[in-house]
Amino acid sequence: MATRATRATSGKTTEATSEAAACGQLADAHSPRTGAARTFPVLEVFGPVLQGEGRMIGAQTHFVRFGYCDSRCAWCDTLYAVEPAQVQAEAEWLDVDAIVARLASLGAQTPWVTLSGGNPAIHDLGALVERLHATGRKVAIETQGTVFRPWLAQCDVVTVSPKPPSSGMVTDHARLARFTALPQSNLKVVVFDDADFAYARDIHLRYPNRPCYLQPGNAVGQDDTAALLAKLDWLAQRAMHDHAMANAVVLPQLHTLMYGNRRGV
Amino acid sequence: MATRATRATSGKTTEATSEAAACGQLADAHSPRTGAARTFPVLEVFGPVLQGEGRMIGAQTHFVRFGYCDSRCAWCDTLYAVEPAQVQAEAEWLDVDAIVARLASLGAQTPWVTLSGGNPAIHDLGALVERLHATGRKVAIETQGTVFRPWLAQCDVVTVSPKPPSSGMVTDHARLARFTALPQSNLKVVVFDDADFAYARDIHLRYPNRPCYLQPGNAVGQDDTAALLAKLDWLAQRAMHDHAMANAVVLPQLHTLMYGNRRGV
Repeated sequence: MATRATRATSGKTTEATSEAAACGQLADAHSPRTGAARTFPVLEVFGPVLQGEGRMIGAQTHFVRFGYCDSRCAWCDTLYAVEPAQVQAEAEWLDVDAIVARLASLGAQTPWVTLSGGNPAIHDLGALVERLHATGRKVAIETQGTVFRPWLAQCDVVTVSPKPPSSGMVTDHARLARFTALPQSNLKVVVFDDADFAYARDIHLRYPNRPCYLQPGNAVGQDDTAALLAKLDWLAQRAMHDHAMANAVVLPQLHTLMYGNRRGV
Repeated sequence: MATRATRATSGKTTEATSEAAACGQLADAHSPRTGAARTFPVLEVFGPVLQGEGRMIGAQTHFVRFGYCDSRCAWCDTLYAVEPAQVQAEAEWLDVDAIVARLASLGAQTPWVTLSGGNPAIHDLGALVERLHATGRKVAIETQGTVFRPWLAQCDVVTVSPKPPSSGMVTDHARLARFTALPQSNLKVVVFDDADFAYARDIHLRYPNRPCYLQPGNAVGQDDTAALLAKLDWLAQRAMHDHAMANAVVLPQLHTLMYGNRRGV
């Protein structure tokens, strides 16, 4: 999932294909199986790093980034985990054992493993979550709130980032409400402009009991640190002068401030 | 309290006068009383702003900054709220009614009011906390963990920032433990150097059940954004390569990144 959302200069907009069945097919169609073990397309296993955004900002975590996505946001900053041709070219197909071994090989152990994408929820990761818990890790997941899976309820933190108008996606609230019903869920909305802010406001009002995080969008390869901080200030001012948004938390992407739009950070 | 810690280039170090009795005398000695109402030395009432650091980073809040402090950190960035001569010259003496009215005059209401300083805990703010709660506000307090007051237990979030070696202060753990016994307390340690990191590590190991936030120190008037982010990266790497610190959260001062060392932000 493109939670680390940045506006791709050449991004084109397409409709979301958010049917769970279609997503399952999407994943399955590309899924080679190695013997009995189900494998998953993994783009990156990295860390420890600081979680750069949202509910867990500043926390130390490892990341596992899975390929394929049922959305195609105009400003996606992780196209290499979204566009089928890129995923096919770059993903390694790993089973649960191999993912856990890869995490162990990273040395320093953090309490957290964050599952990201693409949209990790299109895969059947229940066994992975169970294995990580068995080894004492806590599991956070970043997903856009389109494809619900029962195993999401086993994750310790579920960050749901429905996509605002600038993404070109359309929100299906019947689907989103299944995620926000999870007590460990929180909402994170990327805001590029006034229309996105209005969308975030609507989301916050619809799900008032879920912690709501706002994050300024940024243009990949265009924004320097000063521009990113100016956008944060703009978003903060918008939120602070709207009584309905008084409980919303406004945060930047720390990793983008620190490292720019690099992979593996 | 100097939670927004920065290294003052001309800061001199003195010993803490952390006796609660002495602190009460300190506050009382400077406290004119207007009729029956007890008044408090207030340096700033401002907001809404984003909380720039620690446990509540990104949350919208108003701030009330109280004068006088029982510590004198070498790198204090709020000397105007610490040095008696400056407090005497700049503080307004306000009673609870006046503080609440000042907050109301700021217009946009946030759920949070943050009490800061100086060290706000040297004053008897129980009536203020009660009044703020009665008006539907939640109260966060920032204090260094030296002077315990029973009314602290009424605050919704108690951020305790014991001072590391670079401050020139010495920690009294018998006093600090009274704060960390509060279930709503969290620890925030400013780290300038390796000795400070070792101190933070000791704090985290002594109070493992309290959320622990690390924050890079910065040099007032010396650090630009790039330097601040480089210090954040240094601190993150230190924490991530020390197994004992795997649960520590590493965060910058957002307000310093956004606005530099300005007042009222």
